[in-house]
Amino acid sequence: MKAITKIEKCLAMALEAAEDPNCPPKLAGAVRHAVFPGGARIRPQLALAVAQACGMDDPRLSEGVAVAIELMHCASLVHDDLPCFDDAKTRRGRASVHFAYGEPLAVLTGDALIVLAFQTLAAAASQSPLRLPALMQIIASCVGMPSGIVAGQAWESESRVSLMQYQRAKTGALFVAATSAGALSAGADPKQWQALGDCLGEAYQIADDIRDVMGQADLLGKPVGQDAQHDRPNAIANLGLSGAIDHFESLIRTASESIPEGPNAQSMRALVMHESERLVPREACNAYRDNSTTESKLEQGNKSISN
Amino acid sequence: MKAITKIEKCLAMALEAAEDPNCPPKLAGAVRHAVFPGGARIRPQLALAVAQACGMDDPRLSEGVAVAIELMHCASLVHDDLPCFDDAKTRRGRASVHFAYGEPLAVLTGDALIVLAFQTLAAAASQSPLRLPALMQIIASCVGMPSGIVAGQAWESESRVSLMQYQRAKTGALFVAATSAGALSAGADPKQWQALGDCLGEAYQIADDIRDVMGQADLLGKPVGQDAQHDRPNAIANLGLSGAIDHFESLIRTASESIPEGPNAQSMRALVMHESERLVPREACNAYRDNSTTESKLEQGNKSISN
Repeated sequence: MKAITKIEKCLAMALEAAEDPNCPPKLAGAVRHAVFPGGARIRPQLALAVAQACGMDDPRLSEGVAVAIELMHCASLVHDDLPCFDDAKTRRGRASVHFAYGEPLAVLTGDALIVLAFQTLAAAASQSPLRLPALMQIIASCVGMPSGIVAGQAWESESRVSLMQYQRAKTGALFVAATSAGALSAGADPKQWQALGDCLGEAYQIADDIRDVMGQADLLGKPVGQDAQHDRPNAIANLGLSGAIDHFESLIRTASESIPEGPNAQSMRALVMHESERLVPREACNAYRDNSTTESKLEQGNKSISN
Repeated sequence: MKAITKIEKCLAMALEAAEDPNCPPKLAGAVRHAVFPGGARIRPQLALAVAQACGMDDPRLSEGVAVAIELMHCASLVHDDLPCFDDAKTRRGRASVHFAYGEPLAVLTGDALIVLAFQTLAAAASQSPLRLPALMQIIASCVGMPSGIVAGQAWESESRVSLMQYQRAKTGALFVAATSAGALSAGADPKQWQALGDCLGEAYQIADDIRDVMGQADLLGKPVGQDAQHDRPNAIANLGLSGAIDHFESLIRTASESIPEGPNAQSMRALVMHESERLVPREACNAYRDNSTTESKLEQGNKSISN
């Protein structure tokens, strides 16, 4: 079974709690709306790929980790879309949860998904219960305080923010959770896989900033220009578009080089390159570079004329 | 050390993550505001009392359970107070979190506290890791879907609600978590302690309804008349004030009788009676009954005159 098919199946199984006849029907609907249909499911795929590279001796636990991380991601999207944050009316090309179900159910959906993430992880740990405490520590620290995704979102309420600290927490942390917990779920040392998550997380955030400037809403499935609109710290403001593209490419190289040698290292590297292409197509980068070089030459030409 | 002192100390230790210099300062402040100073801390006290009655062979784990349950409770209060729910400006006699720190930080504070609850539990399980998966299941099911406190709050968004189902989920579930997880943290059978949590949870909710009608805002530390204002299902509307008081007293008796025999059964019963008195003072009930009997006699007298 392909990893993505497996992930969709495991997510559906995890959401069975929402199918219980005792569950308030609107909450059940809102939770399903938040999880299905999903986005690229890159975080759970990354967790499973790392687990696979580490031997995956307990597939159920690795799948539990993958599901837990995706549910945390979905929870964060639902809360980030709330009127008091982005007030986004669309997500993944259709109505955001609060737009479809109202604000109270959107708040509760996020809460229910965080709880369900931990619950799914606990249920998946029956074969290897001794790995559960450390797995929970990794996932909790990548979601909560002081520097998980919740803390990342909270930096938006501060007047002084370090771009690196903000992006590491808001986006990077869940990628670190995916690689570290993916490795640990297979009994491997999570520290060896932290750099991969770190680089991919930063690359993903920069890709998001790049697409927020270059992108089209229909391709992203969410509104563009959000960073500027919400005056959020972002890489483009610091590096310019060209600098951001350079930095993105350098992060992808570092990510690829950080992968520990092993029987599956090559396929992991291929996955990283594939994801890089999906995030920021090379063709678009080259086209932008050609344009900006031409513009720059024209500018220089104009300057020499005017001088 | 008295149980309440121990609980405050453990809560302060759990919140050390918020003291980390890398934590966004406003989030750290909002999380502390949500937890300190606390209310009566009845749920963690109940968890510790049950653990004690069951022998408490791993005090660190039992304290972890107590803290996790209190943090879940604090999270639910922060989210329930949000403008999209109760829009309560005060809580525990001072500003609610969203009123003091704004709505975005209140949403994130609730999220961070849910994560911290599970994280604290995981950290406390190092001596007895094999108890962790079942403890997480108990706590997660009492907080999330289909019938935990999050689901309880979600029933307020439905047009058809069973009062029993709503109250069991919204308030009762966390009392069941306190007694069941308290017992399991000491290696005892959680099922034997479920009835105690069930009865106390319902009693607590009814006491809240009674005080919402009879109470004064300065005594409750939050606005009164909220149920009527928000058109929420409540016991008074179903049973009348006198019927609600009778039901409260019957629940306390059943709770007391449900306590399994053992060396600490007597002190557990004393705790239940003490809590009952704190929730709905007997004197107030008797005064209400005397008044209503007099009124009823007068009414009968008036009727016989008018007839």
